[in-house]
Amino acid sequence: MESSFRMDNAQASQDRARILQALELAQRGFGLTSPNPPVGAVIYKDDRLLGSGYHHRAGEPHAERMALADAVEKGHANELKGSTIYVTLEPCSSYGKTPPCTQGIIDAGISRVIYGMVDPDERHRGRADAVLQSAGVEVKGGVEEEACRAFLRPWIHTVCTGCPWVIAKIAATLDGRIVRAGGEHRISGEKARKYTHRLRLRSDAILVGGQTVRTDNPELTIRCGIEIPDGKEQPWRIVFTRSARHLPSDAKIFSDKHSNRTLVYEAVEDFQGVLRELYKKYGIVTLLLECGGHLLREWLERDLVQEWVQIVSPYIGGGDNLLLSGSDLRVEKILSDTQTRRCGEDFIIRGLLSKS
Amino acid sequence: MESSFRMDNAQASQDRARILQALELAQRGFGLTSPNPPVGAVIYKDDRLLGSGYHHRAGEPHAERMALADAVEKGHANELKGSTIYVTLEPCSSYGKTPPCTQGIIDAGISRVIYGMVDPDERHRGRADAVLQSAGVEVKGGVEEEACRAFLRPWIHTVCTGCPWVIAKIAATLDGRIVRAGGEHRISGEKARKYTHRLRLRSDAILVGGQTVRTDNPELTIRCGIEIPDGKEQPWRIVFTRSARHLPSDAKIFSDKHSNRTLVYEAVEDFQGVLRELYKKYGIVTLLLECGGHLLREWLERDLVQEWVQIVSPYIGGGDNLLLSGSDLRVEKILSDTQTRRCGEDFIIRGLLSKS
Repeated sequence: MESSFRMDNAQASQDRARILQALELAQRGFGLTSPNPPVGAVIYKDDRLLGSGYHHRAGEPHAERMALADAVEKGHANELKGSTIYVTLEPCSSYGKTPPCTQGIIDAGISRVIYGMVDPDERHRGRADAVLQSAGVEVKGGVEEEACRAFLRPWIHTVCTGCPWVIAKIAATLDGRIVRAGGEHRISGEKARKYTHRLRLRSDAILVGGQTVRTDNPELTIRCGIEIPDGKEQPWRIVFTRSARHLPSDAKIFSDKHSNRTLVYEAVEDFQGVLRELYKKYGIVTLLLECGGHLLREWLERDLVQEWVQIVSPYIGGGDNLLLSGSDLRVEKILSDTQTRRCGEDFIIRGLLSKS
Repeated sequence: MESSFRMDNAQASQDRARILQALELAQRGFGLTSPNPPVGAVIYKDDRLLGSGYHHRAGEPHAERMALADAVEKGHANELKGSTIYVTLEPCSSYGKTPPCTQGIIDAGISRVIYGMVDPDERHRGRADAVLQSAGVEVKGGVEEEACRAFLRPWIHTVCTGCPWVIAKIAATLDGRIVRAGGEHRISGEKARKYTHRLRLRSDAILVGGQTVRTDNPELTIRCGIEIPDGKEQPWRIVFTRSARHLPSDAKIFSDKHSNRTLVYEAVEDFQGVLRELYKKYGIVTLLLECGGHLLREWLERDLVQEWVQIVSPYIGGGDNLLLSGSDLRVEKILSDTQTRRCGEDFIIRGLLSKS
């Protein structure tokens, strides 16, 4: 009895380690797969890694198919029978742009499926278990579920609400100004700017207000020496403005080579309606708010911001450009799951936003 | 040659280690010794610690005298001859409230004096070397000088400028407000409050504006379960107000048992003049600014703040109570030598202030 308990224990711990290995692979797809989730998979037989893979982008094979193909390519086709696949998300069981992964797993003769989190879509949740078990495959879900859920937070939010996950990114001085004394709009140091561009790399869209377009004429692209993976397009640039007539037509976002990825929304009242459209029509899962204090206030008042990334620069200068304008919010927000770190001469405070 | 070089090297490294040991002792006096500096000393003969001590408070013996007395008390009186004393600051060589330490060292037969930083007062600097050397004592100063200087920064500033070292302490939300949405003035969590009270313990005075007295009716004392060492008095409470008539006479700072330690300054224009008086008349070396955004602005505009301690709480709520009010400062400030750390649910950003 005891030795069998020990074996179970050892296997459980091995299962967790391999799911984390698959999660590492999934990271490579973060920001590239929308509207699909970034997923990773590894296939093992005993202690041998037969194949591994991750989902690269929508329309291309899922992580499970990538791992199977990798195993075949490495000459392990005959060993797949009786092997175990570890995947960070419950395998899909229905036809989408690609055939269901459950069928691929069954066809390959895999005998055990370990996965991280269940499908957040109630219509699909747990269906993989049924399909696989009825084909005689052993299935265990919920392994390192917390880690997998945290990683897929934006996508889960989108599946459950139909709206993109909104990250407010703020660069401000110690006294909460977004413009330095004297009028300099560039606040963050080099390292923090690079951090911001990595955030953009992991996002599908950047949203600013008309005022930012007029004042800063930003490019809103991924730069700062960051290598853009194959297949990753520049983020959508979205402008919320009271009147589109007042936007300069020669602004960079309207005249550069990505100008077909700039969307303007005028006098928006129904923010949530726009969010739904951004997901449905453009497949935007993660949206980065890089707006000033007035528009940020509108987003917070509507309770539509899920994550907060604040870059604090070591200046104190006063002035009228507050990171958040105006009187008390109707409902105060609080940051949880916070992380903080130094980034060059700046500090980064990051966390999840909720009502306090 | 080489072995003598090695010996020199070993001795230099031993000297540094013992100065740092003396500095540890000096820490115990921080905040208690004003207007004197906190100083520590250890006496060694070869590898044996004969005695150690630190300056407890003004009027009591200096660190060197405390270490000598400790050695005697431990029965090492006869061994002092030929020993080495390590002290964090150049020993005093003139009569103050106590006789000069150089004389005590000579009388005890100590043959070697190693000290950290030279006296910052130009009138005294280097005099100990001359006095001791003429009595045949070997002297070496400037050992771990940086560490000793950093530790004595407030006192050095005071000696050199005649003004207390001013620390601005700010407790604010992520969006730079000092009152939470809904009107709650208590922003920081328990751990950060404790941190604040430890800051008070290391300060000689706390300064607020009349508005803070009227709105918060603060006690401005050291509490939060912090043990107050023997001989440490509650800090002076200093109020800057436009009109003393408008301060409530039943405010805690005027009616509690420390009310004799409350000073009111009315319609101050010459902030520096008040600072000089606070040092000269009350021996205040470290002054903690705990004021609102309007008065803080006055202090920053006058360039009279040396250190900045900001406690950032995880709320976002908007509102009119900014940590720093008004338009651009005439001269922007920048924080250097920054430290940051999490403190319970809050974050602390601390550093030295200078013109950017």
